[in-house]
Amino acid sequence: MQEKIRIGWIGTGVMGASMAGHLLKGGYPLNVYNRTRHKAQALLDAGAQWLDSPQEVARISDIVFTIVGYPHDVEETILGERGVLSGLGAGGITCDMTTSSPVLAERIAQAAEAKGCAALDAPVTGGDVGARDATLSILVGGDVAAFERVKPCFDLMGRRVTHFGKAGMGQQAKLANQVAVAGLMFSVCESLLYAHEAGLDVRAWRDTVSSGAAGSTALNNLGPRILDGNFAPGFYSAHFLKDLELCVTECRRMNLVLPGLGLAEQLYRLMVANGRGQDGTQALMIALAALSGREWTGVK
Amino acid sequence: MQEKIRIGWIGTGVMGASMAGHLLKGGYPLNVYNRTRHKAQALLDAGAQWLDSPQEVARISDIVFTIVGYPHDVEETILGERGVLSGLGAGGITCDMTTSSPVLAERIAQAAEAKGCAALDAPVTGGDVGARDATLSILVGGDVAAFERVKPCFDLMGRRVTHFGKAGMGQQAKLANQVAVAGLMFSVCESLLYAHEAGLDVRAWRDTVSSGAAGSTALNNLGPRILDGNFAPGFYSAHFLKDLELCVTECRRMNLVLPGLGLAEQLYRLMVANGRGQDGTQALMIALAALSGREWTGVK
Repeated sequence: MQEKIRIGWIGTGVMGASMAGHLLKGGYPLNVYNRTRHKAQALLDAGAQWLDSPQEVARISDIVFTIVGYPHDVEETILGERGVLSGLGAGGITCDMTTSSPVLAERIAQAAEAKGCAALDAPVTGGDVGARDATLSILVGGDVAAFERVKPCFDLMGRRVTHFGKAGMGQQAKLANQVAVAGLMFSVCESLLYAHEAGLDVRAWRDTVSSGAAGSTALNNLGPRILDGNFAPGFYSAHFLKDLELCVTECRRMNLVLPGLGLAEQLYRLMVANGRGQDGTQALMIALAALSGREWTGVK
Repeated sequence: MQEKIRIGWIGTGVMGASMAGHLLKGGYPLNVYNRTRHKAQALLDAGAQWLDSPQEVARISDIVFTIVGYPHDVEETILGERGVLSGLGAGGITCDMTTSSPVLAERIAQAAEAKGCAALDAPVTGGDVGARDATLSILVGGDVAAFERVKPCFDLMGRRVTHFGKAGMGQQAKLANQVAVAGLMFSVCESLLYAHEAGLDVRAWRDTVSSGAAGSTALNNLGPRILDGNFAPGFYSAHFLKDLELCVTECRRMNLVLPGLGLAEQLYRLMVANGRGQDGTQALMIALAALSGREWTGVK
């Protein structure tokens, strides 16, 4: 009989808490750490074990998942003095599910290899709803053998799991996704603002065009919220800005000009600079309207 | 028994020829004019009658449809010396299905009213395939009574017919649609280029993300053509540039800042200036890659 794989989980925010919960329900013993302990309480109540640092989690785990905030958090959590790699035994796997830097993912993989461990980068798409319902898409880069070993865990958290190649390629797949989303935000917000300013019945307009060439997931999901003046976060603008900055940084490295992406980064920085970082990404509509001195509060 | 409504049709390009054909098949007598006569031949063979000018068409028609190239063509065809309104009898309807200027549509409506006639602006979405299969969306502005009278004809040409208000509002609805499409072109082209340059398997990437937040009609329809290096026109870049220019002109009038739209206009002008006006809109990919000194020929 196969020995039970021991799982470590670091990062129990909205996404992480749901995802870790699926592993616990799937029967895996779970060792947990989070910077803010009370956010891990539901998992502890459900049987997870609390540890006081990433290092201590790693010492008693075979696979350690991380999903934290920014690349510098990833760096500290995995490569830091009391980080995952300082505690992980030979043969262990560190798997970062944060949307983070492809270059950092490569560095982590090298550091893991030097310790006889393996690393995966495995950011996700699908948001809080996908995390809750285990319908995420998981975009994976890194060692194939490690991927195969972690795959049963991924399958508990997501519906679509794709291995895109060497370390960093999971991050690249996610960043390419965010480049696509950036264009969609222009598509949705600028067309709705145009339609409204032109005096159209914007709801009727959206119903008419959403099944045609102008149609997108974003127009279907975010369009109605924008029309309702609902800017509650499905995904924080501040986090989207972080992702766009990662994309732009990668473009610098690749010497690649993407003017739409560059413009999106500027506008999301404008939003966040104006105190809208905790609004959802659809609040771009407010910033966009404000450029022309309009105030967007939704339509009837 | 109701007297048979006599239809005039001006403009028998790829779109117009298909659309007029549906009216002919629907049993309406058809009077036809086109600047280049041979493009009307299929309709003439099917029973349509040739006339030598828009004026002559209008003299023997109750409803005259126009679908021509640019706003100045619309202006000449309807308001010109031998244009539709110079021949149309009182009670007649001039219905322009070209994507054209909302302001011109208002001028046409005023000129029609002064003659005891009515005018509709009724641009379409759905492209050559929608025209051929009669699955177009038709976006209509203008007099409601005229709309009701023309509606049976619209129903032969399209699947979704929406009246958006007074003269010019059909054009506004179409232009708002093009604003949305402009953002989608950034979304699709920039994300595919990023994914390719990052070294991802771009086909696998597209398959993975197209069902999620990055998904759009454009990624589904144009994405595969871009990956195949197929730049044959579904919709000409030169025509899309014309539409974007109309949007930008309207934004000036409304004093509305849409930075994504503005950038899209510049890039499509760059494309057309570089001889790609007769390529499909997806050829933006070539121009985008060229900005960074890359040559895009598709992927395996």
